Amino acid sequence: MRIIGIDPGSLRTGFGIIDMAAGGRLSHVAHGCLDVAGQPFLSRIAAIHSRLTGILQDFSPQGAAIESVFMARNADSALKLGQARGAALVALLEHGLPVEEYTALQIKKASVGAGHAGKEQVQEMVRRLLNLPERPQADAADALACAICHAHHTTTRQHWQERRMSTP
Amino acid sequence: MRIIGIDPGSLRTGFGIIDMAAGGRLSHVAHGCLDVAGQPFLSRIAAIHSRLTGILQDFSPQGAAIESVFMARNADSALKLGQARGAALVALLEHGLPVEEYTALQIKKASVGAGHAGKEQVQEMVRRLLNLPERPQADAADALACAICHAHHTTTRQHWQERRMSTP
Repeated sequence: MRIIGIDPGSLRTGFGIIDMAAGGRLSHVAHGCLDVAGQPFLSRIAAIHSRLTGILQDFSPQGAAIESVFMARNADSALKLGQARGAALVALLEHGLPVEEYTALQIKKASVGAGHAGKEQVQEMVRRLLNLPERPQADAADALACAICHAHHTTTRQHWQERRMSTP
Repeated sequence: MRIIGIDPGSLRTGFGIIDMAAGGRLSHVAHGCLDVAGQPFLSRIAAIHSRLTGILQDFSPQGAAIESVFMARNADSALKLGQARGAALVALLEHGLPVEEYTALQIKKASVGAGHAGKEQVQEMVRRLLNLPERPQADAADALACAICHAHHTTTRQHWQERRMSTP
């Protein structure tokens, strides 16, 4: 199963794509950061949507995960983040992808093992878990961590479904 | 020139479509409200984008106007509004429409003549300006007022461009 994780932002949107083999083993496919800073706001929204659509066409993931945002610093940054997130969501949903949301706590727990890890810890653990030669850029690392979190939750769900089915 | 105005919201997104004749005369084409309440949040975002895309295909506007939002009540509502607005913007931009943003003050001045008009005043003035049999629903009225505002600004811009060109 191929999973894309997204870390949306109005200046930089990270993406990370991993493959999960039948036994749950994860492998890195691609990651990167859509940097749309320095453009007018509407062009940024259009670019997030169109560039993400291109990535979905190139890599054909079967599942998508995105960080759920409950709180932003203030109403102004929330509005900007919200519009970027809306543009990214539309790209995922248009592509027919089931989208799962995870809290920052769930994402950090899945990659670092602790809910209150710093950016560098996430970058380093993502590097180790996916056997990368170097630490990915921060937004891309968050997106990969989000994809890893989705992989873990999918494995756990499958495990419980199998247990339930095998229990008389 | 056919103009669509949008009043985005995470529960209800108003739209209003008007035609502006060569002399600046406005006529009503369509209006309505995309009510996506009662669905999970991600389905709402998908529905705003897909239903608005359908409306753009049906009515083929040449220009689009949307209220610019600087402040929301709080960060949580700003995040929800932002995502709805992002989904609506993607639909407009995907359709290749030039999108103009106007402040609530500009929109109210264009329809009511005063910047601090209430919802009912906007509904009543939109009804009169477009010769409608009854007051449109509040979100649709705001969307029509936004389209009217764009029509006025387009006329003013054309006027000044013509003046500039005719001045030696």
